[in-house]
Amino acid sequence: MDPDRILRVDMTTGAIFTETAPAKYRFLGGRALGAQMLLDETDARVHPLAKEAKLFVTVGLLGGTAVTTSGRTSFVFKSPLTGGTKEANVGGQLGHRLARLGYKALVVSGSSLNGWRRLDIDSEGARLGDAADLAGKSNYVLHNELVGEALRTRAAATIGPAGEHRLGAATIAVTDPEGRPTRHAARGGPGAVMGAKGLKAIIVDDSGAPAVITGDRKDAFRAESVKFSKVVLEDPRTHNLSKTGTAGVVKFVNRQNIQSMPTRNHRLGTWEGADGISGQMIAELGEARGGKMLPCMAGCIIKCAILFNDAEGNHVTTAFEFESIALLGSNLEIGPADLVAELDRLCDDIGLDTIEIGNAVGVAMEAGVIPWGDWEGTKGLLEEIRAGTPLGRIVGNGTVHVAKTFGIDRVPAVKGQGLPAWEPRTLKGMGVTYSTSPQGADHTAGMVTARGATTDTLIKQSRHEQLVMMAIDSVGVCQFTNALPSDMATFVSNRFDVDWDDAAVLKMARQGIDAEREFNRRAGFDRDDDRLPSWFYDEALPLPDGPSVFDIAPEDLDRVWNDG
Amino acid sequence: MDPDRILRVDMTTGAIFTETAPAKYRFLGGRALGAQMLLDETDARVHPLAKEAKLFVTVGLLGGTAVTTSGRTSFVFKSPLTGGTKEANVGGQLGHRLARLGYKALVVSGSSLNGWRRLDIDSEGARLGDAADLAGKSNYVLHNELVGEALRTRAAATIGPAGEHRLGAATIAVTDPEGRPTRHAARGGPGAVMGAKGLKAIIVDDSGAPAVITGDRKDAFRAESVKFSKVVLEDPRTHNLSKTGTAGVVKFVNRQNIQSMPTRNHRLGTWEGADGISGQMIAELGEARGGKMLPCMAGCIIKCAILFNDAEGNHVTTAFEFESIALLGSNLEIGPADLVAELDRLCDDIGLDTIEIGNAVGVAMEAGVIPWGDWEGTKGLLEEIRAGTPLGRIVGNGTVHVAKTFGIDRVPAVKGQGLPAWEPRTLKGMGVTYSTSPQGADHTAGMVTARGATTDTLIKQSRHEQLVMMAIDSVGVCQFTNALPSDMATFVSNRFDVDWDDAAVLKMARQGIDAEREFNRRAGFDRDDDRLPSWFYDEALPLPDGPSVFDIAPEDLDRVWNDG
Repeated sequence: MDPDRILRVDMTTGAIFTETAPAKYRFLGGRALGAQMLLDETDARVHPLAKEAKLFVTVGLLGGTAVTTSGRTSFVFKSPLTGGTKEANVGGQLGHRLARLGYKALVVSGSSLNGWRRLDIDSEGARLGDAADLAGKSNYVLHNELVGEALRTRAAATIGPAGEHRLGAATIAVTDPEGRPTRHAARGGPGAVMGAKGLKAIIVDDSGAPAVITGDRKDAFRAESVKFSKVVLEDPRTHNLSKTGTAGVVKFVNRQNIQSMPTRNHRLGTWEGADGISGQMIAELGEARGGKMLPCMAGCIIKCAILFNDAEGNHVTTAFEFESIALLGSNLEIGPADLVAELDRLCDDIGLDTIEIGNAVGVAMEAGVIPWGDWEGTKGLLEEIRAGTPLGRIVGNGTVHVAKTFGIDRVPAVKGQGLPAWEPRTLKGMGVTYSTSPQGADHTAGMVTARGATTDTLIKQSRHEQLVMMAIDSVGVCQFTNALPSDMATFVSNRFDVDWDDAAVLKMARQGIDAEREFNRRAGFDRDDDRLPSWFYDEALPLPDGPSVFDIAPEDLDRVWNDG
Repeated sequence: MDPDRILRVDMTTGAIFTETAPAKYRFLGGRALGAQMLLDETDARVHPLAKEAKLFVTVGLLGGTAVTTSGRTSFVFKSPLTGGTKEANVGGQLGHRLARLGYKALVVSGSSLNGWRRLDIDSEGARLGDAADLAGKSNYVLHNELVGEALRTRAAATIGPAGEHRLGAATIAVTDPEGRPTRHAARGGPGAVMGAKGLKAIIVDDSGAPAVITGDRKDAFRAESVKFSKVVLEDPRTHNLSKTGTAGVVKFVNRQNIQSMPTRNHRLGTWEGADGISGQMIAELGEARGGKMLPCMAGCIIKCAILFNDAEGNHVTTAFEFESIALLGSNLEIGPADLVAELDRLCDDIGLDTIEIGNAVGVAMEAGVIPWGDWEGTKGLLEEIRAGTPLGRIVGNGTVHVAKTFGIDRVPAVKGQGLPAWEPRTLKGMGVTYSTSPQGADHTAGMVTARGATTDTLIKQSRHEQLVMMAIDSVGVCQFTNALPSDMATFVSNRFDVDWDDAAVLKMARQGIDAEREFNRRAGFDRDDDRLPSWFYDEALPLPDGPSVFDIAPEDLDRVWNDG
């Protein structure tokens, strides 16, 4: 079935209906589709948790197909964290199933007034049901209950207690290929938006769904798909990812000349305990304990997800990522890996963005709420979030909220969103992306890790990478495929029987970026919001060849979108 | 001494110096002066609690003179509550003393790194001193200690625990004529800014200061001053204020056809318990208990400040105002007066804006933190603020912060500032002022209480009243003098030996408004920030002649400053 339908669910009235996507959305998917629909259908000044706000769940243009990793899903919404447009992108088993059922978008509006609801979607349609029995439950229990034995045809998207509490760092957890809630639409508070709608769980079962039709060129599409997989598998970057996951970079970025291992609330860029939380150490432990590398969805051939067991061989967490390790580890001076893995599991279970929480706890440590390196204290804060205590709600609302609550003016955030690990004072291109992405501080919005490049080059690279990432998130594949615009053009052409080239892909990406920027403008953002916090310009990191600050001038940052 | 000097204190370095005010500030005072200096000297994007932020303390153009109420003082700063420009205007004994020492402005910059400081200002100059002995103390103890027996020449401006915690609802308390800390520069968090600078107290002693020179026309000035006092005293509004204070309006605004007594977090406009918190009831109690009406500063002839005693005749609170009574009373369904008076005293002691806290607690009750009408619970929350607990910090950071923390989307605030009592759905002109004032929801920014007027009239009246209030706050008199632009023109002319007319006064006011609006624009505000929350357009109040919502169109609101 061609995934061209939009499923609309109104939580206030309980009304559900399906429509064929209008022609203008035909060649938009994932992030770009969500951005355009958010702009088209909602008032940018609405309160993100109001019943007038909407949650868009969109699959990529390649969703449901055999292209590796193409089942990624976008959750798009006005962010309670940033107040602007937000896309939280997630792997897991959800996207392919939605696509196979013929949906390119699910739009949730309104708010259930009489308690928690669940939304079941299958080949017979969609139904809202009472979810009183699910209320208060955390993600591990939920996914076991909702997916369990039906793992081969079913996937869930759930909120944990953090989402029920409508917290700014609340995620939506998506079932991983082993049935666990380890894939998270994490950034910007999608869980809070889902919680405000009274929706506890979305369960999608694609039993009996027909294969996604790929049109006259389906043989060419399949051939390209096989070829693409081969290229991905031969890429040395894939090789590294499949061995040590994203955690493999820890030792590299911890070096004196890079200092991109955030330490002590981003005061330093190297941490003496980094070896203990490195991908190499985790792989070593994994060998002894039955750890393994997993795909984030069926059909992914990269398998970068670290499954981490404890010393007894019991599962602790999956998708033990570099960002989680850096923000919950070195940034808080917590290690070694066993301790950080437990924090990661807690975040998955409660439904929390590890990046946002790592920053939020860092600021809380700065404010003296708990000492640096306090693992027990950090676990305590996470449990407070689960319980919804006042302190838990403070931390669970993210970096800026913690800073505001405790009167801290040194805040590691852009557009209200906590900073990822990549250090903008040494990897200045990352600072350009953090500043100018409509998504706020987001490393997946456009990785630019070149060092020693001119400002002009960094500006151009950031713009290009931001467009490419928009394209990747819109066709719906994983950034680690390193898909080029030409790859995407070929797939889209064969999939939809059109003739796209690189330029068409980048044009679609630009439409997505423009939609996001326009939404932010309407929401009240201006050029001064496209900036890093001023202390990145003042506080230097001590690199071997001299102190380094972020020094890209505001006028140059404005060139990212004004010149290109 | 002509108050034309600016006293600058840098808390980081401890440097203190005095300069003659530049000519461009000669005919600016109070609010307009502060607004212009804030715009001229600070980056609108600075964090309000950063060392780069500044706190401006300015006296009006008539400060130090014998004109009644002319010792009012403006605290101007970038607000940690709103993120925009803010003036918190206060009576008390401070302004006249600063003016008599020759200062029209005190500018505090930087931040003390090594603990709390006090700033002593007298005829010999200004000195920073250690204030470790004052740290942690609340306002009643502080003013007793800092002013005490020296009441006739000394006044203090202090922060309580709320300011030390750098909370968005933190005030600066100024000594009243009886030596108590009951006059507050309250709105927008000036106490947090002072706290962030490490400044616990400013103590001004004008012993030995010469009289303020009023130039060649000083006899005319004095004659006008006497005449003005006579007009004020003969005004029936003064008569009412001197009997029942601002609390005198409770019964009136509680009526079915006005419904301007906020009740249950602004859901209703009348409260069954209103009689028990009315000015008439308070006056009755006062007669039996030795209550009285006081001036807020020496030389004030209006005396609208209610001194409220308990049944044993012991002092509970002074300046028991309508706004405090409405927001801490009916809005929380707390009464009668004795209970509300105790909350008012706690706010004075801790250093909290009663309007902001009444709104914040209202939202907390809405979130189920404590039940409606829970007086003990509300006292508990105030004590949590004093102690700086997580829950205390949530509430002490104000309305929007509480709403964000608990995921509430129905928030009674404009530009981040909690709503005063005057109801915009029935007194629609107040809604125009709340929406369009650069100060956020602020009843003192321009009272327009006409009912049944056309939109056009309301727009014009709000604009005019906003300009008049800017003028009043800039010459530095009390709004309750009902000074007309012509009165102010006469005083300024005789004071400075110039020839001002109404138009000159309004031109100065417009400069002040423009400076505030420009600062807000630079800080990121746009036209969509000049709006009431959307629920004022949706949730009707049940007036006898039909349901009433706020219904002034956005385009009309924009006309306030675009057309005028």
